[in-house]
Amino acid sequence: MQSLWLENQALSLRDIPHPIKPTEALIRVQLSGICGTDLELVRGYYPFTGIPGHEFVGEVIDSPDKSWIGKRVVGEINVVCGGCEQCKNGRPTHCEKRTVLGIANRDGVHAEYTSLPLANLHLVPDSVPDEAAVFTEPLAAALEIQEQVQIRPTDRVLLIGAGRLGQLVAQMLVLTGYDLCVVARHPHQKALLEARQIRLISEDEIQPRRWDVVVEATGSPSGFDLARQAICPRGTLVLKSTYQGEMTINWSPFVVDEITIVGSRCGPFEPALRLLERGEVDPTVLIAERYPLARALEAYEDAKKPGMLKVLLG
Amino acid sequence: MQSLWLENQALSLRDIPHPIKPTEALIRVQLSGICGTDLELVRGYYPFTGIPGHEFVGEVIDSPDKSWIGKRVVGEINVVCGGCEQCKNGRPTHCEKRTVLGIANRDGVHAEYTSLPLANLHLVPDSVPDEAAVFTEPLAAALEIQEQVQIRPTDRVLLIGAGRLGQLVAQMLVLTGYDLCVVARHPHQKALLEARQIRLISEDEIQPRRWDVVVEATGSPSGFDLARQAICPRGTLVLKSTYQGEMTINWSPFVVDEITIVGSRCGPFEPALRLLERGEVDPTVLIAERYPLARALEAYEDAKKPGMLKVLLG
Repeated sequence: MQSLWLENQALSLRDIPHPIKPTEALIRVQLSGICGTDLELVRGYYPFTGIPGHEFVGEVIDSPDKSWIGKRVVGEINVVCGGCEQCKNGRPTHCEKRTVLGIANRDGVHAEYTSLPLANLHLVPDSVPDEAAVFTEPLAAALEIQEQVQIRPTDRVLLIGAGRLGQLVAQMLVLTGYDLCVVARHPHQKALLEARQIRLISEDEIQPRRWDVVVEATGSPSGFDLARQAICPRGTLVLKSTYQGEMTINWSPFVVDEITIVGSRCGPFEPALRLLERGEVDPTVLIAERYPLARALEAYEDAKKPGMLKVLLG
Repeated sequence: MQSLWLENQALSLRDIPHPIKPTEALIRVQLSGICGTDLELVRGYYPFTGIPGHEFVGEVIDSPDKSWIGKRVVGEINVVCGGCEQCKNGRPTHCEKRTVLGIANRDGVHAEYTSLPLANLHLVPDSVPDEAAVFTEPLAAALEIQEQVQIRPTDRVLLIGAGRLGQLVAQMLVLTGYDLCVVARHPHQKALLEARQIRLISEDEIQPRRWDVVVEATGSPSGFDLARQAICPRGTLVLKSTYQGEMTINWSPFVVDEITIVGSRCGPFEPALRLLERGEVDPTVLIAERYPLARALEAYEDAKKPGMLKVLLG
């Protein structure tokens, strides 16, 4: 099959055999997305050799349970053991032996076919088009914020960053009645938020020490710095992006102000699919470009551009 | 009155007038404690000129409400405005206009007399001796951990540091049935914990990525480093000490492992007094030395020694 291949921080197109795993579903990838993590893998943030990509929607072609064949599915990216300390304690996404689709020890979805255990699959409701379903994984990651942190309707919530993930976080958070403001850098990012009546705030306007919850979705030291100035005493700072390299922090203000910092990663698929089915969130406005798999290298180059929203393959 | 005075990182004994504030209680200090923060002030961690010290028990000598005269009291250290954003939102210890006893814009307790508003005072139950009551403030700070974080009885809890504050945290946490282990450095710190059947663990024995809650009470980068290795995915790291200067952190593991970091400072006095009254916690075992106020300079020198527990004045 045709697939994208990552090795030594270099991408190439290859023709490799179909994945054949008798215990897993074989899935034909209909549409896949390029995510910030994919770009970080190419930059060498984490050593990975194989097929990248973890955001997808596809059709089950073969399966140990034949009733799945022909179903349209999305898939959770952590393939877990079920028996380790983390799995047994209700934290399967932190399984100590996990493989991660297109990220760690498991080929991903930027290929014609992929495979996952049935336990990872979720049926896509008929009313949700492929172009929306392909965003289930990042929307689930956005929902993880509310899975981890109780945000009260009276809280002032500041979101820093309105890129691929930030847009989904904004669309999701504004549903709840929070007093939400978003810091966006690029005009097209701002336009998307304004179209949904989501309030923007410029960096200069951010009142220091005022915001109950700050979500940092830029993954940049400057975003982190802005967040820590904005957060109010006893406030919660949610880190929604990984940071490359190290950052130097003066911890004392965090202790004196009793700040809570919460790292946040993968989230729950079912509520993400419910939001998509109800049309409460519309991720399709994020689609910037769509390339056939044969032009995946070009697609990755495009996705790297500053401020670029979602580039799809398929 | 006789008092200790801090100016330009130098301590001296001075004879200065009594504090006279018509809206506040005048308190004769019976006993006061030297805390890590006092030593940090002397080192220049925060600019403060005046009488240091914030841990005390004393007797009300004069008061706007005469019914307080003669009462034995302890006092909350944050003097707040009641009208600012933080006060109005139930976070008075974070009052934007606060003065802090012996720490910020308010003379402290290493003197014959001190003063505080009546709203800050708590009556000491008759059965609690001065030698225990003087620990109310740091015990309240220890209780702040449970004020902020829900620790479940089934959680594995690791406490790093068994100094002045760590000992109180250990005594308080072990009451709850948690699976608690403590990292202590000095033999006399270990002996105090062993006397209360509190389990010790050496740094080498700490299983990485295993502990649901880690309380870091050393304030040292090496303690922080140990904590982040010990914490399990989705675990909570409580920072109970301020850190001097800056630390360089690789944030990505905190995001990937979805760690929560909680800064923790001043706590509630009433539950601290209840624990002292019931005898559930015995802080008097921490008393290392007791000096008269006239020998306060010597007392501070003593308190600085590595591993030194509580030095009292009075």
